[in-house]
Amino acid sequence: MSDTRDDRGAGTGPPGPAAQLPGLGDEQVRALRRVGREWGRVSAAPEVWRAALPVDPDLGRFPPPAEIKPPRFGRLVPISPLGPRSAGERVDTEEPPTGRSARAGALVRRLVLGAALRSSAVVTERMRKLLALPVLSADALSSVAYGPEALLAVLVLAGTAGLAYSLPVSGAIVFLMLAVGLSYRQTIRAYPHGGGSYIVASDNLGRVPGLVAAAGLMTDYVLTVAVSIASGVAAITSAVPSLAGQTVPIGVGVIVLLLAGNLRGIRQAGALFAAPTYAFVAAMLTLIAYGLVDAAGRGFEARPAPPLGVTESVGVLLVMRAFSSGATAMTGIEAISNAVPAFKPVEWRNARTTLTWMVGLLIVMFTGISLLIHLTGVVPGSGETVLSRLAHLEFGDGWMYVFVQTATAAVLLLAANTSYNDFPRVLSLLARDDCAPRVFMRLGDRLAYSNGILLLSLAAALVFVAFDGLTASLIPLYAVGVFLAFTLSQAGMVVHWWRLRNRHWRKSLAFNAVGGALSALVFLTAGISKFTSGAWVAIVAVGLFLLVTTRIRRHYRAARDALRLHPHTVELPARTARGPLPARGSALTEGSGADGGGEDEEIPEEIRHLSVVAIATLDLAGMRALAYAASLQQPVLVVHISLTEDEARRFRGYWSLWGDHLPLEIVISPYRAVVAPLVHYLEALHRQHPELTLTVIVPEIVTRRRRHRFLHSRTATRLRRALRPLPKIVITTVPFHLPV
Amino acid sequence: MSDTRDDRGAGTGPPGPAAQLPGLGDEQVRALRRVGREWGRVSAAPEVWRAALPVDPDLGRFPPPAEIKPPRFGRLVPISPLGPRSAGERVDTEEPPTGRSARAGALVRRLVLGAALRSSAVVTERMRKLLALPVLSADALSSVAYGPEALLAVLVLAGTAGLAYSLPVSGAIVFLMLAVGLSYRQTIRAYPHGGGSYIVASDNLGRVPGLVAAAGLMTDYVLTVAVSIASGVAAITSAVPSLAGQTVPIGVGVIVLLLAGNLRGIRQAGALFAAPTYAFVAAMLTLIAYGLVDAAGRGFEARPAPPLGVTESVGVLLVMRAFSSGATAMTGIEAISNAVPAFKPVEWRNARTTLTWMVGLLIVMFTGISLLIHLTGVVPGSGETVLSRLAHLEFGDGWMYVFVQTATAAVLLLAANTSYNDFPRVLSLLARDDCAPRVFMRLGDRLAYSNGILLLSLAAALVFVAFDGLTASLIPLYAVGVFLAFTLSQAGMVVHWWRLRNRHWRKSLAFNAVGGALSALVFLTAGISKFTSGAWVAIVAVGLFLLVTTRIRRHYRAARDALRLHPHTVELPARTARGPLPARGSALTEGSGADGGGEDEEIPEEIRHLSVVAIATLDLAGMRALAYAASLQQPVLVVHISLTEDEARRFRGYWSLWGDHLPLEIVISPYRAVVAPLVHYLEALHRQHPELTLTVIVPEIVTRRRRHRFLHSRTATRLRRALRPLPKIVITTVPFHLPV
Repeated sequence: MSDTRDDRGAGTGPPGPAAQLPGLGDEQVRALRRVGREWGRVSAAPEVWRAALPVDPDLGRFPPPAEIKPPRFGRLVPISPLGPRSAGERVDTEEPPTGRSARAGALVRRLVLGAALRSSAVVTERMRKLLALPVLSADALSSVAYGPEALLAVLVLAGTAGLAYSLPVSGAIVFLMLAVGLSYRQTIRAYPHGGGSYIVASDNLGRVPGLVAAAGLMTDYVLTVAVSIASGVAAITSAVPSLAGQTVPIGVGVIVLLLAGNLRGIRQAGALFAAPTYAFVAAMLTLIAYGLVDAAGRGFEARPAPPLGVTESVGVLLVMRAFSSGATAMTGIEAISNAVPAFKPVEWRNARTTLTWMVGLLIVMFTGISLLIHLTGVVPGSGETVLSRLAHLEFGDGWMYVFVQTATAAVLLLAANTSYNDFPRVLSLLARDDCAPRVFMRLGDRLAYSNGILLLSLAAALVFVAFDGLTASLIPLYAVGVFLAFTLSQAGMVVHWWRLRNRHWRKSLAFNAVGGALSALVFLTAGISKFTSGAWVAIVAVGLFLLVTTRIRRHYRAARDALRLHPHTVELPARTARGPLPARGSALTEGSGADGGGEDEEIPEEIRHLSVVAIATLDLAGMRALAYAASLQQPVLVVHISLTEDEARRFRGYWSLWGDHLPLEIVISPYRAVVAPLVHYLEALHRQHPELTLTVIVPEIVTRRRRHRFLHSRTATRLRRALRPLPKIVITTVPFHLPV
Repeated sequence: MSDTRDDRGAGTGPPGPAAQLPGLGDEQVRALRRVGREWGRVSAAPEVWRAALPVDPDLGRFPPPAEIKPPRFGRLVPISPLGPRSAGERVDTEEPPTGRSARAGALVRRLVLGAALRSSAVVTERMRKLLALPVLSADALSSVAYGPEALLAVLVLAGTAGLAYSLPVSGAIVFLMLAVGLSYRQTIRAYPHGGGSYIVASDNLGRVPGLVAAAGLMTDYVLTVAVSIASGVAAITSAVPSLAGQTVPIGVGVIVLLLAGNLRGIRQAGALFAAPTYAFVAAMLTLIAYGLVDAAGRGFEARPAPPLGVTESVGVLLVMRAFSSGATAMTGIEAISNAVPAFKPVEWRNARTTLTWMVGLLIVMFTGISLLIHLTGVVPGSGETVLSRLAHLEFGDGWMYVFVQTATAAVLLLAANTSYNDFPRVLSLLARDDCAPRVFMRLGDRLAYSNGILLLSLAAALVFVAFDGLTASLIPLYAVGVFLAFTLSQAGMVVHWWRLRNRHWRKSLAFNAVGGALSALVFLTAGISKFTSGAWVAIVAVGLFLLVTTRIRRHYRAARDALRLHPHTVELPARTARGPLPARGSALTEGSGADGGGEDEEIPEEIRHLSVVAIATLDLAGMRALAYAASLQQPVLVVHISLTEDEARRFRGYWSLWGDHLPLEIVISPYRAVVAPLVHYLEALHRQHPELTLTVIVPEIVTRRRRHRFLHSRTATRLRRALRPLPKIVITTVPFHLPV
């Protein structure tokens, strides 16, 4: 992987604003220099390219140069500056587009997203620990709202005998939390620029394990959004049963809100999302405290569970399923290690402290709730969540109950936000490594990876709707991806420490090995015990992801090879610009590997021109295209597609009337097609003269209003589309703007 | 109107294959000659445009010239001919497109539509009288299946007292048929090239009345399809009540069949559609004969109607509604006068004879059915049509009943076909007269106006579905459009005869005057008495049609004015091609009326070039665009949009490494947009130098597979879209074809 990354000089952090324009490798730089020498040797008329250039050197530049130079050309007047120019101020280089609908679109965007942020603002978008904790740990902490319940929902199938296992299984999960938490502390230290599972796995284990880890992560992020929202909506419907039928629309609405919030950028989202997490922590701690005091009053005697219908017997598989369902309580634990660069400096130290706080809180809350469930004998049932039952039991219907439910719903609905921080980030890393479309590297108006945010929202909404927004249906899909990523990440860390062997490497390696082994255990447990009940969906998603990313990578690699500069070893004879060159098309084709008929002219002299003007009528638009073609001072051929013989004769008559200034070919199209015969003609021309670059010049009538467009021939557009696949054909549209 | 039509030399017939390429008016021809002289006087280098032209003169030509001339250029080899070349044979100038999906599309088209027909086949697509009668009169004759029933359905609201009016109202309708039929005989004689209401009204009354008539016709055609199919499906469900719930899907299926059949072309459709009409006529005449014999056995005593619930009292309004509902029995009577050119020569005489036959049959059948209804006392009811009841009464459940119902259904389902002949024809005439988009003039593969056929199918399906496929709901909409068109057509004929005053003009005028007055009466009756029950929909449709066509015409007129050649009176100084010209941009702008900044260069010397290459990276695609730009031997400016300062510095480094052969401008885009700053820059450049024609050269990476397209930057496409509205900017895409 490292060669790619070095190519672009981006390090291990997520790609910045300029990552879409990668630098050149050493070999390419050498090739560039050689190509440049060839230009210098054979190009005849550099003075033409430069001499008559009447361009104000400051035109459209931003930021303006410190001192305005006197205009290079006497008759130039400096144009008015393009907006306020004091340094650091917002300058609207994003000129609103001319169309009415486009302008309305820009306004809506401004209203929803806020003003665009400059690229230089990227550094200041960092979080303090007290802000990072709620933002990044909302996912992990909120998991206690559904984790214990999911665990219990499996055990309850075996009746009271099953419930007896709840405390031991919970204990195992707490141990797992501790192990994985300690593991990630090592990762943060080792990867201060952000050590997500993808980075760690691909760095230490190779490309394919890295992609597998990424696949696990991506499915995890999508499911985090879906599960958190499903569970949050359940918290609401527990308190307000009349909303029970509206689960899906409420959930989709929340996804839309998250989308808009995150497109506005990370900082605003953070401030908005801090309060609910703290409220939830407070609510849980109060609930646990109340419950324990209550239980102390009873001498910590567990109340009996209500009578239960037994559908399964206690067995290894049941306990395994309960364990892997309960383990969903620790999803999101990796969020902090992914987001190290989002912390204020010193990033890794702050991130590590935050992780410790988070894991501590998580363990306290998970243990407390599990104990409370055991002591009160509450079991999961339809229509009301376990947490809601507990709160009812402790607080009745009073304001404390309302507070618990509100805080739970808020933190869950917002927990999804953790995914909105990470999903686009991982996707941008994948894009940087050629494994995802490059659009996911693009930073939007507000310096967020807008396309990744959009994709996440779409995928989560799809999953949410497909599973009717039910937490219970989603849980089986959930654990697989998470623990797959955990496993690969820890395994990568083991390799890392083994290779590094610096101070304390043994301790770190041991932590990571234990975490990795346990994660692998959970992954296998979840994959096997819940395969038929939904885990297969996650496994298929991981497989598809792997397939698609590999294909994308292959395409990008091949494209890069094809686009590589490769100066010819052929010695070009020194000649004037206009002199005929021997036809080199076929030889070049073989050499280049492209079937483009040798689209590898790198110096102007290699290009032999023929302009082909496609003309329908001799109106002003047509005449302008003819004049344009003639003014290029290259050989011109005019082609007219005639639908009937009569029309052909008439057109030829007009042509000679005009003076027959340019050579005209009339093609009669007996089947009334216009585009097909033209394409056919150009193909034949190319076959006969592969050495020529054909510039097809098409007049195009542009209407002022969009709705009038369909009143005019769309030949130019259709021709452009039809000619796209043909090699060595350059398409030039000469627009003519109607006043209407 | 006539000036437009003369402009295009198309006469009054529907536009032929070449109508989309209109000829030039006298003034335009003079302008063309003057422009040609200017080119001859000032253009410096015609030898360049011609000299190096290495094109085989026979390349892609069809049909081949009678004698193959020796190649003009020594080193040319004649290419292999493009398909079989013997005259008259089908030659696939419509080369199948290269894409896989496009090829599959062409195959499907061939299967559905048959092989494409050559334009020269247009003359042979004519009909004999015996074929024309069923094809063109299916609509009119089949109307007796719903007309009498519609009449009765109104009268029955007043109980037995109402039914007493059925014979007098029927008599009035027969008189109307006779009058309108005689009227149209005059029209056919006077308009041998096709005298539809639109032609007659616009010729004699002016443009707006013509458009109103066309609006009436168009709504009529759409409703004919909907009503005929609704009534045909009712005939089926009368015989097979279990299909009653499937009305809408059956009807839509029939519309799709009609669409496909008509896209295949008129002749095949005719042969396919002759039998049902004749079968229906035979069935009706047999039914009437049987019924009359039966009645004669009873001494022609009318059977009493069953007891009826009376909801309205007999009054003028009720009788008016019954009359206008029953008058729908004569819809389609104008079909023949529209389609005169579809007859074999002598067209008008054959058409007239066919019309006489048709009106005769119509009157006999309508009278017979009305009498039979009166004699048998059948009344309309739910679930079974009146015709089905009559047939049951006369033939029981035997094969004759099945024959009657089958023939009725077939003729009704196919009656819709008359509209498929006329709607596209009228639309093509409107398009020729600038009142409809020009695509409706285009003859498809099978010489049918495919776009009109598509539009009709869409509109009819919409209406059919909106009214649940119920005849009774559609009838109120129906009469308005028909009789509006009839009225204007007859009124036009009155003016025609008054102007002409040739032999027999008084008689003809009288016929038309009576027909027109009666039609106007029905139009007013229908519009007033059924306004609230549906006629308002038709009236709104007519109004909208008028509005849209007028707007379209205004646009086309303005566009034509803007596109008119207008040679400058300014004397151009004689100078060499490269010499600078005084900036004439602003002066030209004022003169042309276009805000295009003077896009009216008609001679090459008026064009001052600046090529602007938009480049992102220095790969092979980029270098090729640079080489292309340089090889044009015009001033070149390279613009690079940089997202960060660092990237800008790096790019400038590469540039000087390459040799700094072309002037480079780097624009820094602090908000990460790429297209907007480029457009902004080009706008500024244009404002500063309106005299320059900017050729924006953009490299574009073309992938082999469609699905890979989204992996690459779509800047070229987005830039093209953004630059479209800008004046004097020519857009050139230099494609680079990836091997993958």
